[in-house]
Amino acid sequence: MLKLQSLLTGLALAAGSSIAFAQALPTTAPAPADNPTTAAKVALGKVLYHDPRLSSSGTVSCASCHNTMLGGEDNRGGSVGVEGQVGGRSAPTVWNAAFNEVQFWDGRAASLEEQAAGPVTNPIEMGMKSWDDVVVRLKSIDGYDKLFSTAFGRNSISKDNATKAIAAYERTLITPNSPFDRYVKGNTSAMSKQQIRGMNKAVELGCTGCHSGPAFNGPGTFQKFPVISNGYFEAQYGFKDDKGLAEVTGKEEDEHFWKVPTLRNIALTAPYFHNGKVKTLERAVKIMAKLQLGKDLNDQEVEDIVAFLNALTGEFPEQTMPKLPGMPGKTFN
Amino acid sequence: MLKLQSLLTGLALAAGSSIAFAQALPTTAPAPADNPTTAAKVALGKVLYHDPRLSSSGTVSCASCHNTMLGGEDNRGGSVGVEGQVGGRSAPTVWNAAFNEVQFWDGRAASLEEQAAGPVTNPIEMGMKSWDDVVVRLKSIDGYDKLFSTAFGRNSISKDNATKAIAAYERTLITPNSPFDRYVKGNTSAMSKQQIRGMNKAVELGCTGCHSGPAFNGPGTFQKFPVISNGYFEAQYGFKDDKGLAEVTGKEEDEHFWKVPTLRNIALTAPYFHNGKVKTLERAVKIMAKLQLGKDLNDQEVEDIVAFLNALTGEFPEQTMPKLPGMPGKTFN
Repeated sequence: MLKLQSLLTGLALAAGSSIAFAQALPTTAPAPADNPTTAAKVALGKVLYHDPRLSSSGTVSCASCHNTMLGGEDNRGGSVGVEGQVGGRSAPTVWNAAFNEVQFWDGRAASLEEQAAGPVTNPIEMGMKSWDDVVVRLKSIDGYDKLFSTAFGRNSISKDNATKAIAAYERTLITPNSPFDRYVKGNTSAMSKQQIRGMNKAVELGCTGCHSGPAFNGPGTFQKFPVISNGYFEAQYGFKDDKGLAEVTGKEEDEHFWKVPTLRNIALTAPYFHNGKVKTLERAVKIMAKLQLGKDLNDQEVEDIVAFLNALTGEFPEQTMPKLPGMPGKTFN
Repeated sequence: MLKLQSLLTGLALAAGSSIAFAQALPTTAPAPADNPTTAAKVALGKVLYHDPRLSSSGTVSCASCHNTMLGGEDNRGGSVGVEGQVGGRSAPTVWNAAFNEVQFWDGRAASLEEQAAGPVTNPIEMGMKSWDDVVVRLKSIDGYDKLFSTAFGRNSISKDNATKAIAAYERTLITPNSPFDRYVKGNTSAMSKQQIRGMNKAVELGCTGCHSGPAFNGPGTFQKFPVISNGYFEAQYGFKDDKGLAEVTGKEEDEHFWKVPTLRNIALTAPYFHNGKVKTLERAVKIMAKLQLGKDLNDQEVEDIVAFLNALTGEFPEQTMPKLPGMPGKTFN
């Protein structure tokens, strides 16, 4: 653990902060006071999360773009919503999203509950005209009444409860026991020498200034990207075409500010960045070092950091497949 | 059981056949000699079946249209493939498909193995250019090599083995213990009086001439639909726009011949018929009686038969969610 002590000191110096870099991922996520996690809510939330009938066409569920059988997203640049429409931002992973301070790439949602409401009525995502329409549809599907009743009491099908249930389910989507977690807990052979070298390099460079804490998404919630203008990369990837937080707030000082994304399972969520234009983790690491820290990494350094990032791939919990309630003798539209 | 004996006699008279009408659904499905079912094949098949990276866009898996969390299909008229394209035939259920003599609506595939190969390279379904491309992609995804090795031996990623694995998985998708099955096994209270009345009516009408046997899809494999021309229904639903088996064979005598679809879980697979134009089971029953048997049913008769058909909804087995192999640091295209 001496190694880690020195890492922490290194981080404290580098980031001017006392936030600990080296923390294992908790195995449970905190829930807001008005939505304590219960088994019944999680069960309902899992069903809703996987039900494509929450979309206008009946073909797109939350899981379509945030795939719980994969790394929590779809490995695409832009995700595909109803009618084959392609979104402008790359789907963030749902795994460990419970540990984000804010949700969406631009951080415009303050909670998982608030986030869950968005895509359902987004015209290029799930395309429902309104949550009133969603509620009508849920009420038309035999079986949802009972699931909601068990979770929230009688006659409780509503937007508020649907999003609470989805959020409760998402709070269970945690991937503990990565090689890094086992290393932090004292198993010094859990990471390879290359992974340890990459970790040290990431701290030395200052990556952990933004990517620390158990989910590697703090201490700050937002960060500018890119910090340093670079015409070469900009011409290739067009990072600045999207103004991030400023698209929501309209404020100049928010331009190109983004939620700091978790690095947990980052190896499984290519392609990279808000617009999903960067296909490999090697390239993403090189770009981040250059645009955020002004550093040119050599190939060995990139490979070492990528090896370390692979040590952040956790264990995905075994899940039972939800059984979606049927609507005997009729269909959803 | 006296009741059932008389039913069987009734059927024998009605259909001129000795095929038993009242048979419980087997809990296991037969496998072809060259593809015996093994746990390793089923495990691999389940992963492949749910992997959207088997489509050109990475968004459409077998499960997208044949949803194992629902009644084995998508409750849509035409299914949605890559690029938002909509197919011309309604997705048949995968549940109990192992008990079909032939596959696809037009019966053009002689086995589940043969069927599994089709949609992957259909340009409006999963859109892969060729199975060679599929194999290249599977080889590029870390983890598939091991899954195939366990199921088929070393270096065994191929079209043949992928479709064998998917078929092996599909042979496990069986829904036993419907009210009808429990009734057939001697629990005379497993079906309601209305359901029993509906069953007797279905036999009396001659429905079981085509829909008998454990999966209600025999004794014959193919049947003409519609048997009786009817301008009123044809104008509404355009059943004859699609020539069925003749679209494959080009033979006049095959025009409007279709695989006899299973009635198992029929209540969960609206909308109905090959083109998915009929939204409710009530309507489907009325149309079938008129177009196949020349009978006009009154509302009570329709309701009774629908009640009986609801007694064919089985128990859906608990399944674990497959974990799809990742491809660390890169994506699929």
